[in-house]
Amino acid sequence: MVARFAGRELILDLGMEEKIARILAGFARRLRFDAEALREANRKQAMVPRGAATIDPAGTAPGLVVPTDGPTVIVLPGPPRELQAMWPVALEAEPVRAVLSRATPFRGYTLRLIGIPESEIAKTLREVDRKTDLSALEITTCLRGGELEIDVRHRDGADTAADAVRAAVREHHGRYLFSEDGTTIDEQVARLLRGRRVGLAESCSGGLLAARLTRLPGASEYVAGSVVAYSNQAKSDLLGVDPALIERRGAVSPEVAEAMADGALERFRADAAVSITGIAGPEGGTKEKPVGYVCFCAKLADGRSLARDPVIPGGRQDIRERSALLGLHMLRILLTGAEAPL
Amino acid sequence: MVARFAGRELILDLGMEEKIARILAGFARRLRFDAEALREANRKQAMVPRGAATIDPAGTAPGLVVPTDGPTVIVLPGPPRELQAMWPVALEAEPVRAVLSRATPFRGYTLRLIGIPESEIAKTLREVDRKTDLSALEITTCLRGGELEIDVRHRDGADTAADAVRAAVREHHGRYLFSEDGTTIDEQVARLLRGRRVGLAESCSGGLLAARLTRLPGASEYVAGSVVAYSNQAKSDLLGVDPALIERRGAVSPEVAEAMADGALERFRADAAVSITGIAGPEGGTKEKPVGYVCFCAKLADGRSLARDPVIPGGRQDIRERSALLGLHMLRILLTGAEAPL
Repeated sequence: MVARFAGRELILDLGMEEKIARILAGFARRLRFDAEALREANRKQAMVPRGAATIDPAGTAPGLVVPTDGPTVIVLPGPPRELQAMWPVALEAEPVRAVLSRATPFRGYTLRLIGIPESEIAKTLREVDRKTDLSALEITTCLRGGELEIDVRHRDGADTAADAVRAAVREHHGRYLFSEDGTTIDEQVARLLRGRRVGLAESCSGGLLAARLTRLPGASEYVAGSVVAYSNQAKSDLLGVDPALIERRGAVSPEVAEAMADGALERFRADAAVSITGIAGPEGGTKEKPVGYVCFCAKLADGRSLARDPVIPGGRQDIRERSALLGLHMLRILLTGAEAPL
Repeated sequence: MVARFAGRELILDLGMEEKIARILAGFARRLRFDAEALREANRKQAMVPRGAATIDPAGTAPGLVVPTDGPTVIVLPGPPRELQAMWPVALEAEPVRAVLSRATPFRGYTLRLIGIPESEIAKTLREVDRKTDLSALEITTCLRGGELEIDVRHRDGADTAADAVRAAVREHHGRYLFSEDGTTIDEQVARLLRGRRVGLAESCSGGLLAARLTRLPGASEYVAGSVVAYSNQAKSDLLGVDPALIERRGAVSPEVAEAMADGALERFRADAAVSITGIAGPEGGTKEKPVGYVCFCAKLADGRSLARDPVIPGGRQDIRERSALLGLHMLRILLTGAEAPL
């Protein structure tokens, strides 16, 4: 399709065919599958529009840079791992460098907030717009997994407008603003935890907080582990929560959340702990403790702690994922001593 | 945009505006945000092409069914939770019912396999196609998170061809085929676990297996919990793995995997356990135990067990997610006594 668009004939790139064949032969040998079937299915990947530059596969599919009379077309495989590995190589290809050298670079910044709806930002932007012309900015606000991202891009000359937006968000929504330098909450918590060891105690989040905290490379330096205590027995056996306390207050209660955090501190010999116990639904809600009611406790070995018990909206998976996210923010707030909007 | 396409004027639906306002007022009250700012930002959502049917919001955005001279257009909000809740209502709208009554229903089935590349299926389909005309079938094969899905759709009259495909996959790839009735591995494992309690011991998967097993509603009936033992100390303290064994064999070894499974059986008083310990990378690989080397042990309280130690390809997150998936399949294979292709 790209060859047709570029008006270029499609030819077999023998060198590329050989490279792909070698990669596939390796797979076939290791997995004991039919190498011929694999090669047959993949030969078409070595077909290249005449004059195009090829990019070596990160997986089994090569990439292309195809100059045309109009735009320069970059063709890359879809799987993120392959695409991301091949992208820098594509940027180095001569036709792409030529395009980039003619472009004025965009500048800008990303702000991240938690606990505030998009409409509040829209209102602030309208107010700023009355005093400062914002038409030279590309402003995107996006609600992403419970956090609000404000992305501001502009070309040279619109710095005053960009600064005005940042200042207004700081002034009106400072307590919700947790990132101005592009870092994610995951990266911030990882940085805050360096030199410390964190232990987790999870119930309704079912391991999602542990999964998030261990996602970044090097997490083993500061994550001791997590007890996912889904049953009451596990809360007592593995975290030392008093069964009588569970009986008296309920497994989902601020008291049990704190006992779980204490248990995680002790059992993991940790410097910091976060516990999460809640009702993810769809069953199990009551009038006093509806579906979405989640108790959090973040606690340090020195005794400082932070507790919250919000009702989180949404379905089961929303509640589980939001719980893990709020667990990260609890940890950030406790470790930084920030004003706590949650 | 839809109104322009349909050639219909856009009018304000006062009833819908009122409904949205009521929903938003509730949010604003609960969250103490500016109700007027919210309403302002959302009034445009009550604008409706003349003659269109409206669908009440599941969140704050309404849906539309817009008849045109050509196709009937359904407009729904993007968030899955809202879209999925409103879809059945959209199907009941008169113009949609009229369209559906004229359509011949598609029939078909989905096959799911694990441990086999797409090219093997392509080869089998070519062989079937030599004997049976498959042109009336829509066959989609899709590699989805480590599993291969074969989706076969057809209208009346193509049953023989559809049956031939299913028979050929069964005959040539039966040992890789784990689902013929549309069920996912998650649903199958949930069903197999009913009446049992499972405990997990995770290292490199960092809680992802627990998160997956607890995703389905009702998981608390059969999931006792998971110890995410990221540090060696946690493996010993919380799962009772002998530190000398870790010293001798390494934390990533079939021996430690089995000791972790034993620990999970005991500490969770479980009927079944799965353990995962591996090198997710990017650091920590050696020549003998490269990045992606993962040891699994699935074990029942009666002593039956299944162990594997593959090298999983891909980056850190691929290895973590694939580990959780393979953990589920280990459990399925052990509980069903199926032939084990992993």
